[in-house]
Amino acid sequence: MSETRALADYLVSARLEDVPADVRHEALRALVNYVGCALGGAPEAAVDIAVRTFAPFSGPATAAVLGRRERFDPLNAALFNGISSHVHDYDDTTPKNYIHPTSPVASALFAYASANAVSGPDFVHAFILGFEAESRIGDAVYPSHYDIGWHITGTAGVFGAAAAIGRLVGLDVQQMVWALGLAGTQAAGLREMFGSMGKAFHPGAAARNGYAAALLAKEGFTSGEYGLEGPRGFAAVQSAKYDLSKITAGFGRDYSLRANTYKPFPCGIVNHPAIDACIQLHEEGLNPADIASVRLSVAPLVMDLCGKTGITLGLQGKFSVVHGAAVGLVRGKAGLVEYTDEAVNDPPVKRVREATVAAADDPAVTEDGVVVRVTLKDGRAVEKRLEHSLGNLARPMSDRQLDAKFLDQAVLVLRKDRAEQLLAQTWKLDQAGDLGPLIKTAVPD
Amino acid sequence: MSETRALADYLVSARLEDVPADVRHEALRALVNYVGCALGGAPEAAVDIAVRTFAPFSGPATAAVLGRRERFDPLNAALFNGISSHVHDYDDTTPKNYIHPTSPVASALFAYASANAVSGPDFVHAFILGFEAESRIGDAVYPSHYDIGWHITGTAGVFGAAAAIGRLVGLDVQQMVWALGLAGTQAAGLREMFGSMGKAFHPGAAARNGYAAALLAKEGFTSGEYGLEGPRGFAAVQSAKYDLSKITAGFGRDYSLRANTYKPFPCGIVNHPAIDACIQLHEEGLNPADIASVRLSVAPLVMDLCGKTGITLGLQGKFSVVHGAAVGLVRGKAGLVEYTDEAVNDPPVKRVREATVAAADDPAVTEDGVVVRVTLKDGRAVEKRLEHSLGNLARPMSDRQLDAKFLDQAVLVLRKDRAEQLLAQTWKLDQAGDLGPLIKTAVPD
Repeated sequence: MSETRALADYLVSARLEDVPADVRHEALRALVNYVGCALGGAPEAAVDIAVRTFAPFSGPATAAVLGRRERFDPLNAALFNGISSHVHDYDDTTPKNYIHPTSPVASALFAYASANAVSGPDFVHAFILGFEAESRIGDAVYPSHYDIGWHITGTAGVFGAAAAIGRLVGLDVQQMVWALGLAGTQAAGLREMFGSMGKAFHPGAAARNGYAAALLAKEGFTSGEYGLEGPRGFAAVQSAKYDLSKITAGFGRDYSLRANTYKPFPCGIVNHPAIDACIQLHEEGLNPADIASVRLSVAPLVMDLCGKTGITLGLQGKFSVVHGAAVGLVRGKAGLVEYTDEAVNDPPVKRVREATVAAADDPAVTEDGVVVRVTLKDGRAVEKRLEHSLGNLARPMSDRQLDAKFLDQAVLVLRKDRAEQLLAQTWKLDQAGDLGPLIKTAVPD
Repeated sequence: MSETRALADYLVSARLEDVPADVRHEALRALVNYVGCALGGAPEAAVDIAVRTFAPFSGPATAAVLGRRERFDPLNAALFNGISSHVHDYDDTTPKNYIHPTSPVASALFAYASANAVSGPDFVHAFILGFEAESRIGDAVYPSHYDIGWHITGTAGVFGAAAAIGRLVGLDVQQMVWALGLAGTQAAGLREMFGSMGKAFHPGAAARNGYAAALLAKEGFTSGEYGLEGPRGFAAVQSAKYDLSKITAGFGRDYSLRANTYKPFPCGIVNHPAIDACIQLHEEGLNPADIASVRLSVAPLVMDLCGKTGITLGLQGKFSVVHGAAVGLVRGKAGLVEYTDEAVNDPPVKRVREATVAAADDPAVTEDGVVVRVTLKDGRAVEKRLEHSLGNLARPMSDRQLDAKFLDQAVLVLRKDRAEQLLAQTWKLDQAGDLGPLIKTAVPD
């Protein structure tokens, strides 16, 4: 059987009761992380502009966008969810293939579920299958595909959205083959867009186009039969090297959700060890007012990517390891609000940041580690040494840490009590009779 | 200046009065050919299915689709125009890069002009510029890009649509840079879809997505600055070899419209010499009833691709050189109606077809030529030898032949007098104060 057909067969015939409990729980973690990111990104300029551009072209407003008041047709809602959830680059990552996997799949699913009745179990299973389709196709072409310059979140993501929506609309195997083909023939997204709004457009377009591929297939719009493995199919055309066996190996046994990671801080990942260590110092009782100076020993890449000093803007803070250290020490957290212009110019943060220096002066420090040395005003020294940063597979964020990340973002668009209600609903999403009430909570009044 | 910015600068600053008369006339020929193809494809199943799929998601119905009664938002209308105009594979081709160039550009433009006031001169100029952007970008990556497996009509087409709509909505240079970047990051379409409805989806998606790219850029949605030439941009990612100088060489002097060709017959191009020669015999007075037998000497590729005999369905006729010869001899034409099930089973056509044999028995016959030998019932023999088939750059279709092709397709959806009115309006499109009346004529009551 061809890989496309074998994958289609799996997507159509898999049963939720066969999914192990740890995978189901990881799916909820991914969705909690996703909903928080979508709310945190919802007020961003890239979303505003996309909404302004496409609103005049929206069909009947049957669908909601997470974190926004306006309503649109579900395809446009999927696009906007995709942009908002990725715009801060704060969403999840599978390090094995560099995909931000949840955004393309969940953005389509939440848009669909806001306009159609979908039960929690059906939603979660469609999500797990979409995540799996996307990840397996990404695994098959990674790293060559990514190295060439494809933004794999866009290119693999469109398959994930097609698979997830295809499952919910009840495609048969032939239709699922077409949905995967129509997804593949829309697979796009160039890494040249990094640093512009175009990057966040990719998971949005993947969500929208994958969703549309499933609907087209359902109506009988045909595609080639070998969208993945054909001589002019996705793998051959969009990757120099690939291993198609990764698409089909271990169906129902191996789940890519187990390889998922969540970013604790909305900034360059190389800053994370320093922030993490400084938050730990804060939590251990270090009083920011007592700090005289701070010295960070970091990996050389940190200085290359995030060596910014003398900063005055929130966006600059994302590329400044000393800013990350300062908010960790002063505030004990580094959420979205720690990367605003206000936070960067907050006097206690500014004082500690300007008393902090970073250097690649210790060859033993890897990109996953840091050494923080704080000198106090009374002359004492405090040191914190970290080998593995929070958020890695070796040290995953706990459910409670995901809660805090969620709330930190959700309060940007929702009242605190409502944000907490939404968080509770999202953790129980797999038990919901219908997604409607959850989505209603996720939309500001 | 980067290639992206140089192209953007040209697209923004070019003036219609600087376009030579022959190029303006070729633009009208391309548009006449396009409108005919869009009408001929409008009733096809692929269009019906796409309409059925997307109609529930259409925004306010401000836009028309050529040859169809339903109205949609302009982005959906652009998609449907793109599918209909390419579904018979009867639209134009630039042999230098294998692009079907008019469909992506004109499909977006007619959708736009059906919902917004656009003068004939502005429309034609936007078309010429979109055609040029698409062709130059295609030239830069051809043949490597096509050989890898990209359907270049989809990938280059999205730039053409973005350029044309970007010109009409008055983008400045920076916005045009973004529009080209947002087009490039949506460039898609796999040759693996050939033989399925997915192929005709490509120019539709290119029209829709290029149109959207221009609107996003107008509202300030940013892209990377080097969408074409960057290390992770379109050329580097989607082609093994490329020559970016082809994007910018000879602006305002060299026009790709001069390299455009039009298919006289809606079937595999390798059949065209035989059909052409047989129509000439018909026009010279050969009575079909007098034919005893026919022998075709064709190139070997014709037998490989179009050697079908014993056919009973219209679609099979497209891959049957003996059917093409028979309709040429019997009817003196080979339009869409000669490839219906009815035509294939029409007794006079069937009789001549079954009396015809084809063979690759003459090494002097190239893919562009044929020798037709007819034996009459009275024993006499008639021979027709062809070196260059109609429709090639060496023997272009005349304006009057384009008229006949147009009418042959238009009467499938319009009354004959109305089809003739539309034809006259299309030839004078560049003088129209507004495109509205033309588009109104192109929509059945």
